[in-house]
Amino acid sequence: MYAKRIESILKRKKLRIGDRIAVDKDGKRYEGLLMPRIEMGDINSIVLKLDSGYNMGIRFGPGVKIQKSRSTEPQDVKEEEQYELGRTKKELLKVSFDPKKPPVCLIPTGGTIASRVDYRTGAVHAVSDPKELLHNVPELAEIVNVKEIVTPFTKMSEDMDSHDWKAIAEIAARKLNSGDHGVIITHGTDTLHFTAAALSFFLRNLSKPVVLTGSQRSSDRGSSDAGMNLICAARVAVSDIAEVGICMHGSPDDSYCLFLRGTKVRKMHTSRRDAFRPINDLPLAKVWPDGRMDKINPDQKKRTDKRTELDIKFEPDIAMLKAYPGSDPAVIDYHVRRGVRGFVIEGTGLGHVPTFAKKSWISIIKKHSEHIPFVVAPQTLYGRVNPDVYTNLRILFHEAGAIPGEDMLPETAYVKLGWVLGHTKSMEKIREMMLTNYAGEITKRSLPESYLY
Amino acid sequence: MYAKRIESILKRKKLRIGDRIAVDKDGKRYEGLLMPRIEMGDINSIVLKLDSGYNMGIRFGPGVKIQKSRSTEPQDVKEEEQYELGRTKKELLKVSFDPKKPPVCLIPTGGTIASRVDYRTGAVHAVSDPKELLHNVPELAEIVNVKEIVTPFTKMSEDMDSHDWKAIAEIAARKLNSGDHGVIITHGTDTLHFTAAALSFFLRNLSKPVVLTGSQRSSDRGSSDAGMNLICAARVAVSDIAEVGICMHGSPDDSYCLFLRGTKVRKMHTSRRDAFRPINDLPLAKVWPDGRMDKINPDQKKRTDKRTELDIKFEPDIAMLKAYPGSDPAVIDYHVRRGVRGFVIEGTGLGHVPTFAKKSWISIIKKHSEHIPFVVAPQTLYGRVNPDVYTNLRILFHEAGAIPGEDMLPETAYVKLGWVLGHTKSMEKIREMMLTNYAGEITKRSLPESYLY
Repeated sequence: MYAKRIESILKRKKLRIGDRIAVDKDGKRYEGLLMPRIEMGDINSIVLKLDSGYNMGIRFGPGVKIQKSRSTEPQDVKEEEQYELGRTKKELLKVSFDPKKPPVCLIPTGGTIASRVDYRTGAVHAVSDPKELLHNVPELAEIVNVKEIVTPFTKMSEDMDSHDWKAIAEIAARKLNSGDHGVIITHGTDTLHFTAAALSFFLRNLSKPVVLTGSQRSSDRGSSDAGMNLICAARVAVSDIAEVGICMHGSPDDSYCLFLRGTKVRKMHTSRRDAFRPINDLPLAKVWPDGRMDKINPDQKKRTDKRTELDIKFEPDIAMLKAYPGSDPAVIDYHVRRGVRGFVIEGTGLGHVPTFAKKSWISIIKKHSEHIPFVVAPQTLYGRVNPDVYTNLRILFHEAGAIPGEDMLPETAYVKLGWVLGHTKSMEKIREMMLTNYAGEITKRSLPESYLY
Repeated sequence: MYAKRIESILKRKKLRIGDRIAVDKDGKRYEGLLMPRIEMGDINSIVLKLDSGYNMGIRFGPGVKIQKSRSTEPQDVKEEEQYELGRTKKELLKVSFDPKKPPVCLIPTGGTIASRVDYRTGAVHAVSDPKELLHNVPELAEIVNVKEIVTPFTKMSEDMDSHDWKAIAEIAARKLNSGDHGVIITHGTDTLHFTAAALSFFLRNLSKPVVLTGSQRSSDRGSSDAGMNLICAARVAVSDIAEVGICMHGSPDDSYCLFLRGTKVRKMHTSRRDAFRPINDLPLAKVWPDGRMDKINPDQKKRTDKRTELDIKFEPDIAMLKAYPGSDPAVIDYHVRRGVRGFVIEGTGLGHVPTFAKKSWISIIKKHSEHIPFVVAPQTLYGRVNPDVYTNLRILFHEAGAIPGEDMLPETAYVKLGWVLGHTKSMEKIREMMLTNYAGEITKRSLPESYLY
């Protein structure tokens, strides 16, 4: 809740959180989405989400007018004004890099790592100058030369979709092919593993490291994991590991990070620093901030001089469904009616769906599987779908025509199916591509040590 | 594929796998669903799923007729005939129990633990005599007196739904209240954790152990985990732990089992014996087959003489949806149109849904949340939903009216919401009940040691 006088204006004007509003102050108009006040925030500052994606607090007072916005034109608010209104003005440290260090490109995309708590308005908002990311991490200058910072957009990762994956991939390919030693992408953590999987498929013949990182606590907090994650990411970016991966804390303390294959990683905890874990695979490497690196997984490509190919053809309309007791397969018909192009089903156990249940999934899958692919991935996360062991599995895979997703994560299968459908409409070819290993997403054998790593 | 002569009859009569057919042999008619042949199965034996749930192989030969079944009446095939046709006849060991040992009830419900590979037809099928379960485990007689075996149904667990949970709960409550020391339920593993959660809510004021167990390899295989799981389950059934839980292998070897709280457990691997892991909670106990028991979790109820109450009111129409990049919230409208009563949303990170994304979930949730509950649980599995940290969270929980599911597993939240809706239609009361801890499903504080246990 805002202060009473603000709340009563909002109520009178029927303005609700999420509405696009216009605030006039000091002869200037600010437009954006009305945001709720944050705990500990100033109850007298109205928080707006600007079209730039930044949040801004506008202190209410005499002469300030609030009304419904009639314009839908994106509005440009100058950076200085955002400073003035939204947060404490502050001189930023200028980080200077050594041109003799290996050049890398930094691609900040938003998320917690690029956020600050504004202690005046209480809003957590994206830093407007991506250089701020480097502000607290002078150690970076000893490892890499951040030659360029390219910001495609600024979003929390729960708001991203495949268009954003493409935008990141385009910048990464361009920079890798123009001489940079590696690319560091900072990103919100919620869907970081989806983006990592997408880049793994989008960047073909990858010859250099593409390192995604983020943080579980914003950079301006003492307990932030941002600094160490960035340092370890920089270590990987100049290493000889030519893989797409996520580099985040490997343990709850600040001892080391893990570099995890982009197709075999998942956020497994809502808040811990060591939330990202490898699934059905060993970490590519254990990385210490001081530069030590232990390559745990022998299955990794080495840096070369080859050109990285950009291959971002993608079909976004895939539905991910979970099979569970009482789950109603009629939702499949709903998706087909509205034009869905593929399904990823999170099956139980070895890949089951309700078969001889009251609401059997079999006939509905069979009805559509000649035209629409159904890929089954394990909802257990760990382990591998097996199309043969039980009668119900044989019915699903041999009779109803579903495609067994091997040991792919459901999230990875979702991204991969979109990418495969971007390349072919042939059902035979779709099946063949889904069962082909392109980016380490399918392993031949699961190593027991990788379970609950 | 069956033998050519069978396949050609099936083709001519347009009979397909899953169709209900009738097979006439030796003057007797057998009806059931046509099943596919299993690898290594006899290509000359037609496999039928009988109405009893058992599979049966009927050897094809002169005089055998196959046709479409016109009757939908359930048909009763005598047990002896199933033996004769479907599998090798065999004298079963009679297990004799000592009436001086604590009496327990065994409730076999099907699943791998109650299955055998029929090496003649190749079909994996349920054992027809539940005593077979005890056949290979004479050690049980030294621990418990299995006074009674009550079989409510025989199903693979992917085919179960809430009616089956109720049937099991009714038997368990009746037996516990008539003097048994505990109840052992054998069950398929795919959805074992759903049933465990359901029993946790259905059995109120529980005063004795209710132990669910199963196996990842069928009982007739040398590598089966069935025997040790049953022995450890029996140890728990006569212990003083008055909780519903799952007792399965704790490690890949045969050293010990874990007894895991029914609301805090999940199948985390498709095939390993130690697939069941505690999530956001410590195991109730580590259990060795020789009777040693280490109660790891101090938060557990002790055996008393109180009466267990059966409380199975349940609303089954809950949809479980996952939020992911590009996920389309229009499916919420679809479910509402068809009459769904509640939603469990697997949110990203701390409980996010796409908020300022192109396909924002917020307005659709807000539109319905006054009449239909939306409970958000973490798709990370480990950790806790937090309704406050970020702006997008505050929009979802404070403005759009979703209910934060604390540290409940999505599967547990699904079962709990069905149980809560069985008790009240008041939105206020639903919220209050969802946030009340009934069966250990919400912990106040997550112990770091429980992560990836």
